[in-house]
Amino acid sequence: MKAIVIHAAHDLRIEEAEIAGPGPGQVKLRMATGGVCGSDLHYYHNGGFGTVKLREPMILGHEVSAYVEELGNGVTGLKLGQLVAVSPSRPCGTCKYCVEGLRNQCLNMRFYGSAMPFPHIQGAFREAMVAEAWQCIPADGLAAGEAAMAEPLAVVLHAVKRAGDLVGKRVLVTGCGPIGALAVLCARRAGAAEIVATDLSDFTLGIAKTCGADRTINMAKTPDALSDYNADKGTFDVLFECSGAVQALTAGIMAMRPRGVVMQLGMGGDMSVPMLAITVKELDLRGSFRFHEEYATGVAFMQRGLIDVKPLITHTLPLAQAVDAFTVASDRTQAMKAQIVFS
Amino acid sequence: MKAIVIHAAHDLRIEEAEIAGPGPGQVKLRMATGGVCGSDLHYYHNGGFGTVKLREPMILGHEVSAYVEELGNGVTGLKLGQLVAVSPSRPCGTCKYCVEGLRNQCLNMRFYGSAMPFPHIQGAFREAMVAEAWQCIPADGLAAGEAAMAEPLAVVLHAVKRAGDLVGKRVLVTGCGPIGALAVLCARRAGAAEIVATDLSDFTLGIAKTCGADRTINMAKTPDALSDYNADKGTFDVLFECSGAVQALTAGIMAMRPRGVVMQLGMGGDMSVPMLAITVKELDLRGSFRFHEEYATGVAFMQRGLIDVKPLITHTLPLAQAVDAFTVASDRTQAMKAQIVFS
Amino acid sequence: MKAIVIHAAHDLRIEEAEIAGPGPGQVKLRMATGGVCGSDLHYYHNGGFGTVKLREPMILGHEVSAYVEELGNGVTGLKLGQLVAVSPSRPCGTCKYCVEGLRNQCLNMRFYGSAMPFPHIQGAFREAMVAEAWQCIPADGLAAGEAAMAEPLAVVLHAVKRAGDLVGKRVLVTGCGPIGALAVLCARRAGAAEIVATDLSDFTLGIAKTCGADRTINMAKTPDALSDYNADKGTFDVLFECSGAVQALTAGIMAMRPRGVVMQLGMGGDMSVPMLAITVKELDLRGSFRFHEEYATGVAFMQRGLIDVKPLITHTLPLAQAVDAFTVASDRTQAMKAQIVFS
Amino acid sequence: MKAIVIHAAHDLRIEEAEIAGPGPGQVKLRMATGGVCGSDLHYYHNGGFGTVKLREPMILGHEVSAYVEELGNGVTGLKLGQLVAVSPSRPCGTCKYCVEGLRNQCLNMRFYGSAMPFPHIQGAFREAMVAEAWQCIPADGLAAGEAAMAEPLAVVLHAVKRAGDLVGKRVLVTGCGPIGALAVLCARRAGAAEIVATDLSDFTLGIAKTCGADRTINMAKTPDALSDYNADKGTFDVLFECSGAVQALTAGIMAMRPRGVVMQLGMGGDMSVPMLAITVKELDLRGSFRFHEEYATGVAFMQRGLIDVKPLITHTLPLAQAVDAFTVASDRTQAMKAQIVFS
Repeated sequence: MKAIVIHAAHDLRIEEAEIAGPGPGQVKLRMATGGVCGSDLHYYHNGGFGTVKLREPMILGHEVSAYVEELGNGVTGLKLGQLVAVSPSRPCGTCKYCVEGLRNQCLNMRFYGSAMPFPHIQGAFREAMVAEAWQCIPADGLAAGEAAMAEPLAVVLHAVKRAGDLVGKRVLVTGCGPIGALAVLCARRAGAAEIVATDLSDFTLGIAKTCGADRTINMAKTPDALSDYNADKGTFDVLFECSGAVQALTAGIMAMRPRGVVMQLGMGGDMSVPMLAITVKELDLRGSFRFHEEYATGVAFMQRGLIDVKPLITHTLPLAQAVDAFTVASDRTQAMKAQIVFS
Repeated sequence: MKAIVIHAAHDLRIEEAEIAGPGPGQVKLRMATGGVCGSDLHYYHNGGFGTVKLREPMILGHEVSAYVEELGNGVTGLKLGQLVAVSPSRPCGTCKYCVEGLRNQCLNMRFYGSAMPFPHIQGAFREAMVAEAWQCIPADGLAAGEAAMAEPLAVVLHAVKRAGDLVGKRVLVTGCGPIGALAVLCARRAGAAEIVATDLSDFTLGIAKTCGADRTINMAKTPDALSDYNADKGTFDVLFECSGAVQALTAGIMAMRPRGVVMQLGMGGDMSVPMLAITVKELDLRGSFRFHEEYATGVAFMQRGLIDVKPLITHTLPLAQAVDAFTVASDRTQAMKAQIVFS
Repeated sequence: MKAIVIHAAHDLRIEEAEIAGPGPGQVKLRMATGGVCGSDLHYYHNGGFGTVKLREPMILGHEVSAYVEELGNGVTGLKLGQLVAVSPSRPCGTCKYCVEGLRNQCLNMRFYGSAMPFPHIQGAFREAMVAEAWQCIPADGLAAGEAAMAEPLAVVLHAVKRAGDLVGKRVLVTGCGPIGALAVLCARRAGAAEIVATDLSDFTLGIAKTCGADRTINMAKTPDALSDYNADKGTFDVLFECSGAVQALTAGIMAMRPRGVVMQLGMGGDMSVPMLAITVKELDLRGSFRFHEEYATGVAFMQRGLIDVKPLITHTLPLAQAVDAFTVASDRTQAMKAQIVFS
Repeated sequence: MKAIVIHAAHDLRIEEAEIAGPGPGQVKLRMATGGVCGSDLHYYHNGGFGTVKLREPMILGHEVSAYVEELGNGVTGLKLGQLVAVSPSRPCGTCKYCVEGLRNQCLNMRFYGSAMPFPHIQGAFREAMVAEAWQCIPADGLAAGEAAMAEPLAVVLHAVKRAGDLVGKRVLVTGCGPIGALAVLCARRAGAAEIVATDLSDFTLGIAKTCGADRTINMAKTPDALSDYNADKGTFDVLFECSGAVQALTAGIMAMRPRGVVMQLGMGGDMSVPMLAITVKELDLRGSFRFHEEYATGVAFMQRGLIDVKPLITHTLPLAQAVDAFTVASDRTQAMKAQIVFS
């Protein structure tokens, strides 16, 4: 059984790994497809991000779909051969945040492919693995690549939920990588009346348009275009900041109307924010982190045809070309989401 | 200039009426299309409803679109000949609820075609009228009949807003007249994952299906079908009760999951509710009444193609056949929304 | 070891009962004080309420404090001899509502002294019992009678939480038994600006005044007094309906201002509600049921001197006079909360 | 009639000013007491703050009480000689934010003693002035100095309202000048279970303790003390950041529990915030600016004895010593709120 293992920055290897049989309540999975995420790219290019650093080799990957190959004792609701989306989120269920229902804030979270605790939590870019049955959401009717999009879709649905009611709202999305493009899709699905999207790449902006953006702005070409929206204290009700760039956050804040909500999804370190504008316009800057129940919601949306993620999947490569997948995924002028096929 | 005047139950007349020129900030309108609403039908069949009773002849109608014919002094933003949706809601702007932003709760509301205050507020089923410019929402790109749907659409958008975030939620709509069918459309637009609709008429349920209902139930044929959803304390997150029938409300409440939200849109008198279920499941029964800023939101939704009300408009008749329009509008086995054309 | 056992309506016996030692994570308790609740009285007078009926003998009681007598393996945070408030709420921790954090909605709840599931869940009116350590909230500094008030206090704090922000609000409390009196206390604590309380008994209204009510109204003497508050669509922002009487609910609804919140705490069956007023004023009628994390909050409030429940404890009787305690607790002209001392 | 006029930094003069009679709906006031606010001090020390700069002489002052001296035509509800708290907030009532009920966000706000628009809005530190009757809240039963505290109290009540329900919450207040001390008072009034307050001055922390803080921390002496609260992702549910110091904001954010709310009241410029902590803990950083309906709420709280601001009024000086009042108000080692008596 092969797996994609990161050893250090730029040291990505395809290696053999072991796999046991499924215990009670578990399933053995033959992995189908895995999407390369921004955090995977951070490990690949920099060996980590912020204070999160690789200290030992780690299997990458947390955006995955799979086929059910073997059912452990007591597993119901899954069938052999069935395509499933596999949630990488494994909260403990007993810490104080789990008890409160804030499972994404679990104190003992074991999220696939994360170097945050030590020993690291191994990931899901592998030919086979054992998972808890409850992690597996049946994805009948979807392509394996779509099912693998359930994870970033859940991240965005969680942020949309935290942003509150979007019906009839004017929405700004800054940064149109996969998270930003999904934010456009989900804001439309959630009833936004008008969506403006910004990025530095015409390629990704084109996809954002396909996803439903009413206007796209290439900030590299027209850096002041957002100021069209600054009059009368600003225009947008909600900002999904998906770039992690302080310029995008600042320009976005200036274009927000009073009482607007700024969802910060981009993962940055310390950022300088225009606090006077936040105070005077009474903005609401909210963090959003991972997801929990939104994972199944996203699968249901795709199955019902209410969210179509296919335009985002720009590259699909075999396991043997994993390094190529990481390379192309890093280039926003030609790639949105790159996926790796395991079987 | 002709108008549709109700004198008493079953005494609907087409009569001549006067019209002055527009004052400052006002416009003179040539009326385009008017939709027959349930409250219009109450006046027609019963001379009123509850404690609201006709005491003098009243021009009916509040779901209207029009063409701009003359601009009063100081009016900007409107053009001669332009199609507009005309909001029937005229709050005073200065009472305590207006100051708080609750314009639909205005203490001095003058809503078209309403016998609630005396002298009655005359309505908009007429060939021409003078309105405030701010009541007129440009409806370029829409058909006159669609623009006239802005009013019931606003009623439903207001209820959707009061229901809170619908993204990924399971929604039940009981009663599929025009308000219920619009509730299906709007719940879908607002991100509901699953929508079940009930009625007693296969005709309206067919339209509800077109509007996006995932399942429709004819309660006349399968009166216990909703109990499919009662297990584990219930299923639905949100109920839009649009029938005003106590049986629908009760069956709906039993199918709600804990902490669910019941939006009561149907206008009933005293109703017997299963209070123990409300208490024990901690349901939230909320009233919703008219609208304010949602009127313009609805027009924008239609213009952007995000809401399509055309399947609801089943009958369009000329002014001379106004009584026929009222008759057919009363028959749910063949009509959803009946509209009258004024010009 | 003696316990208070209900066999049928009016058949309350003090009987011997068995007790085992504490298992891992459990404690053995010597019971201190138990308060007689309205539901205990329903079993005593009627053998149940609504569809909840006694089918076999059941130990009553769920408002209790106790002294820690023995610690099971692995218990930390509790000391021998320590006074604790013992939460009667025992959710399963694994059903879907527990996972969402809605522990009071647990599908497998085992709440002390409840005939709702069968076999019934035995209660806590007994000289000794074994409980989970996590049910026991240290109550150092409180009297045993105060600690036993943690349960009804938690019920009310849960309702206050569901009512939303009370700061500066005008609050109406209908029904001033223990729950209503606690609603007055908690509304004051939560920042209500003005509190009006109604009941039919001058005795309980006197205690409501002590608890902080700004005005009390004896509805038996001045049945129309609440209409003082009906002008301009009504006055109160929040109603805590604690009587279960339909007249109180109806009069309260008429006195509510638009968008007001009606918390229904009184346990009634089907109730006829003025739905037109709810719809037109856009009221929000919310159920509230039991509690979870509010139990510890209430103990902390009492320990910090922020809530003083002592004025509510009007009668304290020894175990041998348990029947007298039930009798006096039923008489609102002389009793608020009657408690039984177990040791 | 004398007024306190700022000409430039450190150039504060007592000058003669004109006053007209009251127009319809207005009253003529004999000013009673005025409190020196942080923004007054910014004008005094720096001639402004951020981009807000003095461009012409301006009468300072916006925290004032007064006696009614003359009633204009049509004024009801006020009596000659009556003490009133005078709200400095004068929104236009017709802009889009006023229509929505967001009066504190008025596009045409004329707030007393503010250099933000030009010509500047003259302030209320003067012996007499004319105001709209609706600005005047009867303050019977209060001392003139208390009534003058209605303005900063309203600022804090607005922030408390925006922070959401505080019942049973753990609250941190960073910065214990008048706004911070009021935040302690109001958090207690709103039901906070535990309040920790920080500052650099033992003097102000002593007053914070009087106001109800459970623990006070002098960050100059024990700069790491807040880290006591960082375990398990943090402790506090709500932070009222009243210092405007980036160190306080950062240390506060680290001590917040997941989903906590950070209310930023201190007026700073650009600030560097630990965005990763905000994202990962899903914090909610909210601005709060001025107030509207909370002004009358605060007066009612003081009249009912529910908020006692007297411990905050540390200095009361006559108009002739206005410069001394500004000097002492700048020294946090001996002053909380300094007030000037006009009559």
